[in-house]
Amino acid sequence: MVQLFDDERIDFLLADESMRIIQSPTAFAFSLDAVMLANFASTPKKKGTILDLCTGNGVVPLLLSRKTEAKITGVEIQDRIYSMAERNIQLNDLEDQLNVIHGDLREMKPVLGHSSFQVVTCNPPYFKTPSNREQNQNEYLTIARHEIFCTLEDVVKACKLHVKPGGKVAMVHRPGRLVDIITLFRKYNLEPKRLQLVYPKAGKQANMLLIEGIRDGKADLKILPPLYIYKEDGTYTKEAEEIIYG
Amino acid sequence: MVQLFDDERIDFLLADESMRIIQSPTAFAFSLDAVMLANFASTPKKKGTILDLCTGNGVVPLLLSRKTEAKITGVEIQDRIYSMAERNIQLNDLEDQLNVIHGDLREMKPVLGHSSFQVVTCNPPYFKTPSNREQNQNEYLTIARHEIFCTLEDVVKACKLHVKPGGKVAMVHRPGRLVDIITLFRKYNLEPKRLQLVYPKAGKQANMLLIEGIRDGKADLKILPPLYIYKEDGTYTKEAEEIIYG
Repeated sequence: MVQLFDDERIDFLLADESMRIIQSPTAFAFSLDAVMLANFASTPKKKGTILDLCTGNGVVPLLLSRKTEAKITGVEIQDRIYSMAERNIQLNDLEDQLNVIHGDLREMKPVLGHSSFQVVTCNPPYFKTPSNREQNQNEYLTIARHEIFCTLEDVVKACKLHVKPGGKVAMVHRPGRLVDIITLFRKYNLEPKRLQLVYPKAGKQANMLLIEGIRDGKADLKILPPLYIYKEDGTYTKEAEEIIYG
Repeated sequence: MVQLFDDERIDFLLADESMRIIQSPTAFAFSLDAVMLANFASTPKKKGTILDLCTGNGVVPLLLSRKTEAKITGVEIQDRIYSMAERNIQLNDLEDQLNVIHGDLREMKPVLGHSSFQVVTCNPPYFKTPSNREQNQNEYLTIARHEIFCTLEDVVKACKLHVKPGGKVAMVHRPGRLVDIITLFRKYNLEPKRLQLVYPKAGKQANMLLIEGIRDGKADLKILPPLYIYKEDGTYTKEAEEIIYG
């Protein structure tokens, strides 16, 4: 059995109860965004290697392990959250397929080399640097959510550095940053090939975007059918249910 | 009564039969894209000025004249199609509000000055330069559809040149060029603020995009609810019907 610290608890990751995950309301709990990213990202059919930057408690690697036999490496900068990811791998007996590195995504070249992964995934911090007041409230959440240790450009640059030519980079983010993401993907030769917008419900503006680029790919973006999370009555749509409950 | 040439005919522009438009199956007939653009574009409430580049037979100015009292100028490079636009203005008695210039959008600075329009709209050629075979089949359609006399960058540059700081530029295009459009809008300081994807029907990939940028605007893109054209049974959706039939 793995050890739990502070207010950590073990939740079921998917409805079939086959996977469990250590979370903490004050340090790191996974969001729908991570689940959507794992569902959206293309993965090598069998063998291969995947890198997940800003891995948090390892939720994306855990979910991806159900889609692929590729080896998956996570990188997490916050020591306490890195420790959660490490214990999550043990908790699910995935030490043969998953590993996690405690470190800064801007400094992974000596550790991971360059151009070595078939797929890179990332659910980065969404917001620009917060006010001092916000920063003081909860350091863990502030770092996970804001561009404190890395900017969006740092993230895209790291994706480019570690993905093979012809390899894929998948990211989840907010619509307000689509222009920045597309501009940065182009700048670092990650040509956007698939874009999907997620809408909370019909008639509302999108509140999440999923984008996949191919390193050195040819320009030709496909915009996938939109994804709705809730029906008018507030319950999950069939498509959201399938993704969330696995 | 206006004169008709060759295979030109007069169609009703909207279902209420209040507007008519000269079209030609071999030279220029307006598409759903123009109707969507006119619906999507923000317009000055009352007074103001609008420029419509690549105006064709003037369909976008004609449609916009129903939403705004602003003066609208169209620019069209092909002499025969320019003549259709001119006669369409007469046909609908809109000489006081609409005018059209025969010219090249890359060379309008001496004629229109710079930074003088509140809104610029454009339904540009969608495709890269065609093969010689395609070019020989029908010169009018080839020029209207392909980047022969102007590239996408020429178009965006002209939009930037003629719109006022703080003014809006609205464009319709294909999803495959979204990355190019966003990159060029940023390059020419037209910050994308509203994006809407049009899907032929539920479950299909998007086949049209509508985008609006603000010159020197602050980065903050909104992605509007998706727009579907057809229902499962092949008839127009309620929202498409409202746009198409006015």
